[in-house]
Amino acid sequence: MAKILIIHGPNLNLLGIREPELYGRTTLEGINEKLRKMAADHQVDIEIMQSNHEGEIVDKIGQSYRKADAIVINPGAYTHTSIAIRDAVAAVGIPTIEVHLSNIYAREEFRHHSFIAPVCAGQISGFGADSYLLGLRAAIDLATRCFKEAS
Amino acid sequence: MAKILIIHGPNLNLLGIREPELYGRTTLEGINEKLRKMAADHQVDIEIMQSNHEGEIVDKIGQSYRKADAIVINPGAYTHTSIAIRDAVAAVGIPTIEVHLSNIYAREEFRHHSFIAPVCAGQISGFGADSYLLGLRAAIDLATRCFKEAS
Amino acid sequence: MAKILIIHGPNLNLLGIREPELYGRTTLEGINEKLRKMAADHQVDIEIMQSNHEGEIVDKIGQSYRKADAIVINPGAYTHTSIAIRDAVAAVGIPTIEVHLSNIYAREEFRHHSFIAPVCAGQISGFGADSYLLGLRAAIDLATRCFKEAS
Amino acid sequence: MAKILIIHGPNLNLLGIREPELYGRTTLEGINEKLRKMAADHQVDIEIMQSNHEGEIVDKIGQSYRKADAIVINPGAYTHTSIAIRDAVAAVGIPTIEVHLSNIYAREEFRHHSFIAPVCAGQISGFGADSYLLGLRAAIDLATRCFKEAS
Amino acid sequence: MAKILIIHGPNLNLLGIREPELYGRTTLEGINEKLRKMAADHQVDIEIMQSNHEGEIVDKIGQSYRKADAIVINPGAYTHTSIAIRDAVAAVGIPTIEVHLSNIYAREEFRHHSFIAPVCAGQISGFGADSYLLGLRAAIDLATRCFKEAS
Amino acid sequence: MAKILIIHGPNLNLLGIREPELYGRTTLEGINEKLRKMAADHQVDIEIMQSNHEGEIVDKIGQSYRKADAIVINPGAYTHTSIAIRDAVAAVGIPTIEVHLSNIYAREEFRHHSFIAPVCAGQISGFGADSYLLGLRAAIDLATRCFKEAS
Amino acid sequence: MAKILIIHGPNLNLLGIREPELYGRTTLEGINEKLRKMAADHQVDIEIMQSNHEGEIVDKIGQSYRKADAIVINPGAYTHTSIAIRDAVAAVGIPTIEVHLSNIYAREEFRHHSFIAPVCAGQISGFGADSYLLGLRAAIDLATRCFKEAS
Amino acid sequence: MAKILIIHGPNLNLLGIREPELYGRTTLEGINEKLRKMAADHQVDIEIMQSNHEGEIVDKIGQSYRKADAIVINPGAYTHTSIAIRDAVAAVGIPTIEVHLSNIYAREEFRHHSFIAPVCAGQISGFGADSYLLGLRAAIDLATRCFKEAS
Amino acid sequence: MAKILIIHGPNLNLLGIREPELYGRTTLEGINEKLRKMAADHQVDIEIMQSNHEGEIVDKIGQSYRKADAIVINPGAYTHTSIAIRDAVAAVGIPTIEVHLSNIYAREEFRHHSFIAPVCAGQISGFGADSYLLGLRAAIDLATRCFKEAS
Amino acid sequence: MAKILIIHGPNLNLLGIREPELYGRTTLEGINEKLRKMAADHQVDIEIMQSNHEGEIVDKIGQSYRKADAIVINPGAYTHTSIAIRDAVAAVGIPTIEVHLSNIYAREEFRHHSFIAPVCAGQISGFGADSYLLGLRAAIDLATRCFKEAS
Amino acid sequence: MAKILIIHGPNLNLLGIREPELYGRTTLEGINEKLRKMAADHQVDIEIMQSNHEGEIVDKIGQSYRKADAIVINPGAYTHTSIAIRDAVAAVGIPTIEVHLSNIYAREEFRHHSFIAPVCAGQISGFGADSYLLGLRAAIDLATRCFKEAS
Amino acid sequence: MAKILIIHGPNLNLLGIREPELYGRTTLEGINEKLRKMAADHQVDIEIMQSNHEGEIVDKIGQSYRKADAIVINPGAYTHTSIAIRDAVAAVGIPTIEVHLSNIYAREEFRHHSFIAPVCAGQISGFGADSYLLGLRAAIDLATRCFKEAS
Repeated sequence: MAKILIIHGPNLNLLGIREPELYGRTTLEGINEKLRKMAADHQVDIEIMQSNHEGEIVDKIGQSYRKADAIVINPGAYTHTSIAIRDAVAAVGIPTIEVHLSNIYAREEFRHHSFIAPVCAGQISGFGADSYLLGLRAAIDLATRCFKEAS
Repeated sequence: MAKILIIHGPNLNLLGIREPELYGRTTLEGINEKLRKMAADHQVDIEIMQSNHEGEIVDKIGQSYRKADAIVINPGAYTHTSIAIRDAVAAVGIPTIEVHLSNIYAREEFRHHSFIAPVCAGQISGFGADSYLLGLRAAIDLATRCFKEAS
Repeated sequence: MAKILIIHGPNLNLLGIREPELYGRTTLEGINEKLRKMAADHQVDIEIMQSNHEGEIVDKIGQSYRKADAIVINPGAYTHTSIAIRDAVAAVGIPTIEVHLSNIYAREEFRHHSFIAPVCAGQISGFGADSYLLGLRAAIDLATRCFKEAS
Repeated sequence: MAKILIIHGPNLNLLGIREPELYGRTTLEGINEKLRKMAADHQVDIEIMQSNHEGEIVDKIGQSYRKADAIVINPGAYTHTSIAIRDAVAAVGIPTIEVHLSNIYAREEFRHHSFIAPVCAGQISGFGADSYLLGLRAAIDLATRCFKEAS
Repeated sequence: MAKILIIHGPNLNLLGIREPELYGRTTLEGINEKLRKMAADHQVDIEIMQSNHEGEIVDKIGQSYRKADAIVINPGAYTHTSIAIRDAVAAVGIPTIEVHLSNIYAREEFRHHSFIAPVCAGQISGFGADSYLLGLRAAIDLATRCFKEAS
Repeated sequence: MAKILIIHGPNLNLLGIREPELYGRTTLEGINEKLRKMAADHQVDIEIMQSNHEGEIVDKIGQSYRKADAIVINPGAYTHTSIAIRDAVAAVGIPTIEVHLSNIYAREEFRHHSFIAPVCAGQISGFGADSYLLGLRAAIDLATRCFKEAS
Repeated sequence: MAKILIIHGPNLNLLGIREPELYGRTTLEGINEKLRKMAADHQVDIEIMQSNHEGEIVDKIGQSYRKADAIVINPGAYTHTSIAIRDAVAAVGIPTIEVHLSNIYAREEFRHHSFIAPVCAGQISGFGADSYLLGLRAAIDLATRCFKEAS
Repeated sequence: MAKILIIHGPNLNLLGIREPELYGRTTLEGINEKLRKMAADHQVDIEIMQSNHEGEIVDKIGQSYRKADAIVINPGAYTHTSIAIRDAVAAVGIPTIEVHLSNIYAREEFRHHSFIAPVCAGQISGFGADSYLLGLRAAIDLATRCFKEAS
Repeated sequence: MAKILIIHGPNLNLLGIREPELYGRTTLEGINEKLRKMAADHQVDIEIMQSNHEGEIVDKIGQSYRKADAIVINPGAYTHTSIAIRDAVAAVGIPTIEVHLSNIYAREEFRHHSFIAPVCAGQISGFGADSYLLGLRAAIDLATRCFKEAS
Repeated sequence: MAKILIIHGPNLNLLGIREPELYGRTTLEGINEKLRKMAADHQVDIEIMQSNHEGEIVDKIGQSYRKADAIVINPGAYTHTSIAIRDAVAAVGIPTIEVHLSNIYAREEFRHHSFIAPVCAGQISGFGADSYLLGLRAAIDLATRCFKEAS
Repeated sequence: MAKILIIHGPNLNLLGIREPELYGRTTLEGINEKLRKMAADHQVDIEIMQSNHEGEIVDKIGQSYRKADAIVINPGAYTHTSIAIRDAVAAVGIPTIEVHLSNIYAREEFRHHSFIAPVCAGQISGFGADSYLLGLRAAIDLATRCFKEAS
Repeated sequence: MAKILIIHGPNLNLLGIREPELYGRTTLEGINEKLRKMAADHQVDIEIMQSNHEGEIVDKIGQSYRKADAIVINPGAYTHTSIAIRDAVAAVGIPTIEVHLSNIYAREEFRHHSFIAPVCAGQISGFGADSYLLGLRAAIDLATRCFKEAS
C-alpha cells in the first residue's frame, strides 16, 4: 500500500481554534479527518505531523527516505524562508506537493516567493481545506505510480 | 445547471501534436474530453475556448459576465504579461482558477510572477493535464456554491 | 473641421453595466454621448472606438496617420504593458492625450508606470468620466491648432 | 461661495521672466490672471500663493483646513521629494488636484514618481498653463460638490 | 537642572484638531502638558517647539549645541527624507531619541526607512502619545547622566 | 491580574557572561530581575522565557492564546528572518511590543528590516536593558486595558 | 525547396510611408521586394506576413510547424513584451533569426531586453533594411541545412 | 566687475565651533575671509550666504538671475535630496560649481549621489576648506569669461 | 590539548546514504572518521555534532564559549538564511571556519550569499569531503595558536 | 581601397584548438582565411588582430583613427566589462560592428549587457563563424560608403 | 623637492588630435606643458605617463611607492571599472587626486560611480584641462605637506 | 610529474614590502618559497607568475592548455571584474582553485562577488599566506588525479 506523508507547518496547530468567524470552524483535526477518509477511500496509507520547528520538518522528511511514496506539505511561513526544507525535499527525491490554505499571491509581496516550490512536483494554493484534499488527490496519483514502479 | 468556462491560452493549441516524446501524446482535445467527461459526471455545463489572442480572452471573459459561474484558465504566457486579463477577471467577479501544466516555479525567473493569480480564487500548477482536472474539480465546488446562492 | 479620435482600451466596454453601486451607472455609451455633445459644441469631428485587442488599437492609430488631428486614449491595462501602442503613437506624430478614470497613482505599484505617457502631449487621471471631458477639451485646443497650421 | 486654494511650488516665480524664447512669455502673473478670470466666471473664490519653501506650503495647507473646498497644487520639485506635503494634503482631507506644466513622464526618471499624487483626487500634466486651467475646472466641480454637501 | 529639547515635526500642529474620531481628541497641546508634567515630576527643564520647516528644525538643533542635554524628536515626514536633520543631530552630539505616534513599520514601505534613527540613541514608535512619554523617560535618563558627567 | 509574556530570542542567554567590558555586566538574569520588580510594582503577572529555537518561540506564542494579555519580545536575529514568529503574533492577536537592546538602525543594513514589527503594537530599540523596561511599561498599559475589556 | 517565413511585427506597416526624411523612402514593400529577389537568387521559397497583433503572430508561428524551415522575425515592440511569441518560437523548434532595423542597444533601456532572442539562433540589429537581408542570408544557410537533413 | 555668489548649505554654520579636534579650528567665518581675500586679489565681487533652509537657498538662486556671473555652492545635505535647488540652478543658467569639504565618495552610500551636480559646471570634493578656494578659482575663470561675453 | 568543534548543519545526516551514484559512498560517518584521524595525528581534541535544527546549532555554539578553541562548521542551508548562527559565532569569539562540500558559487544565486562568512576567519568550498579536512587543518593552526596564547 | 580592421578579443586565440568535438574544428586562422577571401572578393583591404589585452585593443582602435573605414570587433568577455573599448570606438568615429560567435542572449545574465553595442552601428550574434562573415559583409557596405564619401 | 606623478588613463592620447571642433585644439601635450609650467612655478618635480593599459597604470602606481609624494590621476574609463587601480592607490598610501575633464555626473548613469574616488583625497570633475591644473594645485599642497613631514 | 601553475594577480607584488605592521613581513617571495617547498615535498612541479595585467593572466592560462594539471589563482581585484579570466579558466578546462589572503566576505560588498569562482573547482579565502598552502594542497590532489588519468 502506497504511503503518503502529510506535513502541516508552523502555526497550523492554531487553525479553527481561534477567530472562527474569520478562519471558519474547521480545526486542523477536522482537515486531518477528511484526509484520513480520502486516504481510506483510495486505499493509501497516510501519516500526519504538525510542527512549528523547521528542524523537525527537516528531520521528518529525511526519515521518510525510501519510506514515503509522496509528500503533501503546507510549509506555512517556512515556504518563504527555509532553504533547509527545500534541500530536504530535493535530497529524498520523493514527489512532493506544496499546498496553501490561502491564495498566497493575493497577500504580502514576501509571500509570493517559495523556496520549496521549485523542487516540488506542483503547488496548489487558495482553496482553504480543499487545497489539502486536491493535494492529496494529486499525491495519490503520483504515489501510486511511484509505488507501482518500485514494486 | 452551473456553467463553467474553460480557457486555454496561447500556444496550447500545439499541445500533443509536436514533440510527443517530450510533452506526451495528450493533445488539447484529449484534455478537453477528460474535462467534458468530468463535467458530465458532476452535471455541470462547460464551455471551452482556446485562443492565442490576449484580446479574445479579454472579450470572452467580459461576455461571461452573469453567464458563467466559474472560470478555469490556463493563461499560458499571458500569465506573466497581461494586466488586461487580470482586469477582466476582476471586473466580472466570477470565481476563477488559474492552472498550469508545468510547475512554473521550476522554470525561468520571469515565469514565477503571475499578474492574474492575485485576483483568482486559487492557483494549481505542475500536474500536467491533471492540473486542469484538479482545477475543474475546485471550480465545480465554487460554481455550485455560487449557482446555488444565485438561485 | 478638426478630427479627433477617441480610443477606449480593454475592459472599458464593461463600464456601468456591472457593479453600478461601485462604478456608478454611467455606461461607456453615456461617456460617449457627453463626448459627442462637447465635440458638437466645439465644432470638431470625433470618432470613437473601443477594443480589448492591443493589435486593433495599434491598427487604428496607424490608420489615423494624416487623418486625425488629435487622439484621446484611455489605454486601460495596456498603459502599463504595451510598447506597441507607444510606438504607434510616436510613429503617427498626432498629439495624443492619455486619460484614466481612476487615479492610477493611488492604485497598485504596477499601475504607476505608463509606457505611453512619455510620447503623449499630456496625461489626465483620476476624474472619472470627467477625465475624458478634460482630455477632449485639451485635445480640441491641440487639434484646432494643428488643423489650422496644416490648413 | 466655494473657495479654492491655488499653490505654486518652488521656482515657479521665475516663470516667463527668464528665457522667454524657451518657456514662452507667460509669467506666473499671467497664469494667475487666467485663473482669476475663470474663477470669476464660475463664481468661486480663489486664493493664490507661491513659495519656494516646503514648510510654507505645509503651513498653508494646514491652515486651509475647513477653509478651502479644493486645492490645485503644482508642487514643482517637491512633487518628487516631499512626504511632508503629502501628509498635509492627506491630513486636511480637502480634494486636491496635482498639476504640472510639463509632461513629467517625458522627463528624467526621478520626475516620474510623485509622493503627492496618491493622496490627490487626480493629476494633470503636460498642457503648459492650460494644466492649471484644466485643474481649476476639475477643482470647481469637486469644490462645488463639497461646498454644497457641507452647506 | 538637565535640559531636554522636544521637537514636533511637520503636520503635528494639526493633531487632535481634525478628525477626532480617527486620531483621538488629544491635541498637541495635550501631549505637551503631559510632557511638562513628567518633566516637572523628574525635575528636568524642557523646551518644546513645533515646525513644519526642515530648516527651522535644523536651526534649532544647531542652536541647542552645548545647551540641551537630550533631544526627543518626532521628525514626522522628515524622518524619511531629511539628511539635513540627521547631520544636525550628528553634529551637536546630543543624545537624541526618535519617536513616532504610529507604528511606522505597519504603514507604507517608504515610511520604514529613517535617515535620522542611525544617529540617534534609540527609536520608539507605535504607542500614540505614550511614545513621547516613553521617549522623554529615556531622555531623562540619558540627559541626567550627561548632565552629571558634564557637571 | 493581567499577564504578560516576556520572550528573549536567540543568543540572549549569553548576555553579560561574555565580554563584560563591551556589553556590560548585566546578565539576562539581571534584566529579568528588573522586569520582575517592575511587574510586582505594577501588580501584573509576568512569565519569562529564553530560547534559541524559532520553533519554541512559535510554540510559546501559540500557547499564550487567551492566556497572556500582552507580549514583550526581543526576537534577536529572528527579527530579520522569521515569518513564522510574525504569523504567530498575528494569529494570537495579543498586543505585542518588539524590543531591542541595540539601535538596530545603526547596525548592518540587514538588521534594519523587521518581519515582526508590522504586526506589533510598537517597537523600541537602542536603550540597552532599558528597552525592556520601557517595553514592559508600555505592555502593562496595553495589557491592563485588554484585561479590563476582557473582564 | 527550403521554405522561410518572414514576419514583420507591429507598426512596420507604417515604414517608409510617413516621415521619409527621417526613416528614408524604403517602404515595407520595398524591403519585401529585396527579400523576394534574394530568395529567388538562392532558390528558397519565402512567405511574408505583417501584423500588429501579437496573437496573429503566435498563430502564424504555430501554423508553420513542420512547414517552414527557418523564420526571420522583426518582432518590433513585441520583442520586449511578448512571452507568447517566445513560447511559440520555442514550441515549433524552427531555427529563428531576430532582426531589428535600428540598433536597439542605442535606444531606451527597455528596448535592450528581448524575450525572444534567447530561443532564437541569433540576432541582428542596427543595419536598417540590410538587417533583414543579413538575416535572410543566415536563415537560408540554416534552412538549407535543416531542409537537407530532413530530406 | 564680475560677481560671484557663495552659498553655504545646512549645518555649515556649526563649522569650527564644535569638536575642533575633529573638524579643525577653521570656522565658517575663517573660510569666508580666505574667500574674500582671494576675491579681492582677483578683483571679483563676492556675496556670501549661509542657510539651513532649502527654500531660502532656492529663493537666493532665483534672485541671482542676471545678477551673479557664477555660483559656488556647498549644498551640504541638500546635495542628496533637493531637486528644488537643482531646478533653481538649471533655471537661472548661471555657471555653478558644487563643492564639498569632505570626500563624499568615501562616506555613506547615500552621499554618493548628487541631484545638483548634473546641472553644474563641475564638482570639487574632499579638500576641506581648500575645496572652496579651488571652487572659487574655477568660478572666477567662468565668471570672468561670462562677464566679458556679456559686456 | 586544543579543542575543536565540528558542526554539520541540516541534511548532512543524509550524506552517502542516498543516491551514492551521485554523491559518492562517503557517509557523514566516513567524513567523521577522517576528521578524527587527522585530529589524532595532530593531537587535538575534536567534538562532532550534526543537527537539522538552527536552534540546536545556536545552543551548541553558545555552550562552546571558553570551551572550544576553534570551530569548523558546514552550515548547509542555514548559511544563506541564519542570522542567529552568525550572531552566535560573533558572540563566542571563537575562530570559525565555514566549509562547504560543493562549490556554492557554481550553484543557484541564493547560495552565493553567506550570512555567516563575514564573522568567520575564512571559508573553504568546493572540495567535497576534503573541504572538511582542509578546514580542520586550518582550524588546528588557529586553535593551536589560540590555545597557546591562552595557556 | 576601403580598409577594414578585424579585432578578435580575449580567448579567441584558443578557438578550434581545444575541445574540437564541442566548438568544431574551425580555428581562428580558419575564420581569418574566410574573412580574407571575402575581403579579396569584395576588393577591400583587411587587417586582423587578436589580443587578450584590453589596453592593446584600445591602442589599436586609437591608432586606426583616419586609417580604417570600418571595424568588425568580437570583444569577447570585454563586451560586458570594458568602458575603455567603448570610449575608443566612440572616439575614433569609425563605423563599428560588434559580432559574437554564440547567441549571448541565450547565456548567463551578465552576458546580455554590452557596453560597446550602444556606440556601434549594429550587432550580430549567434551564427558561429558566420557572425564574422555577416559582420564583414555589413562592414564592407558601411566602409565603402564612408570611403566614397571621404574620396 | 616634492615629486608628483600625473597619470592619464585610456584614450586620453587621442585628446585634441581628433574632432578639434568638439574637444578643442588642446592636445594632451598641451595639457602636459601647462602642468610642467605650474610644477616649475611651484618648484615641484612632476612625472607624466599615459597608458591605455589598466595593468601599466597599476604597475606605475606600485613603483611609485615611497617615490611619489602625490598622484594626480584621470583614470578615464577605468574610473568606473577598475578595482585593481583602486587597490593600487590604497596600497601605496600616496595622497591621490582623481580628475576628469568632463562633468561625469552630467553623463551616462554608469559614469556616476567611481571605484577609485573612495580611496582618494578628493575628486575634481568638469573643468576641462583646468581640472588637471586645479588637481595639481591641490596635489602640490598635499605633496609639500607630506614631503615636509617625511623630511 | 604533475604540473601546477600558481598565478598571483594585481598588486600582490607589493605584499610584505609596504606597511609590514599591517600585512606582516611575509613578502610574495616568502609565500613562493613555502609553495616551492610544499611542491618539492609532494613531488609536483610548480610554475609561478605574478602580473598586474588582466591580459597577461589570460595569455598565461591559455598557454597552459594541456600543459598544467591544476591552477592555483589569487585573482586579486580581477576576481570581481574579469570575465576574461573566467572564460580563460573555463576554456582550458584545467582544475582551478581560487584563493584569497583576506576573507573577502568580511570586506566591501563589491568584493563578495567573484566572476571566477563559478568555473573553479573551489574557493579558499581568509587564511593569509596559508590560503595558498591549503589551495596548493587541494590542487596537488586534483592535479595528481588528473595527471594519473591522463597517463
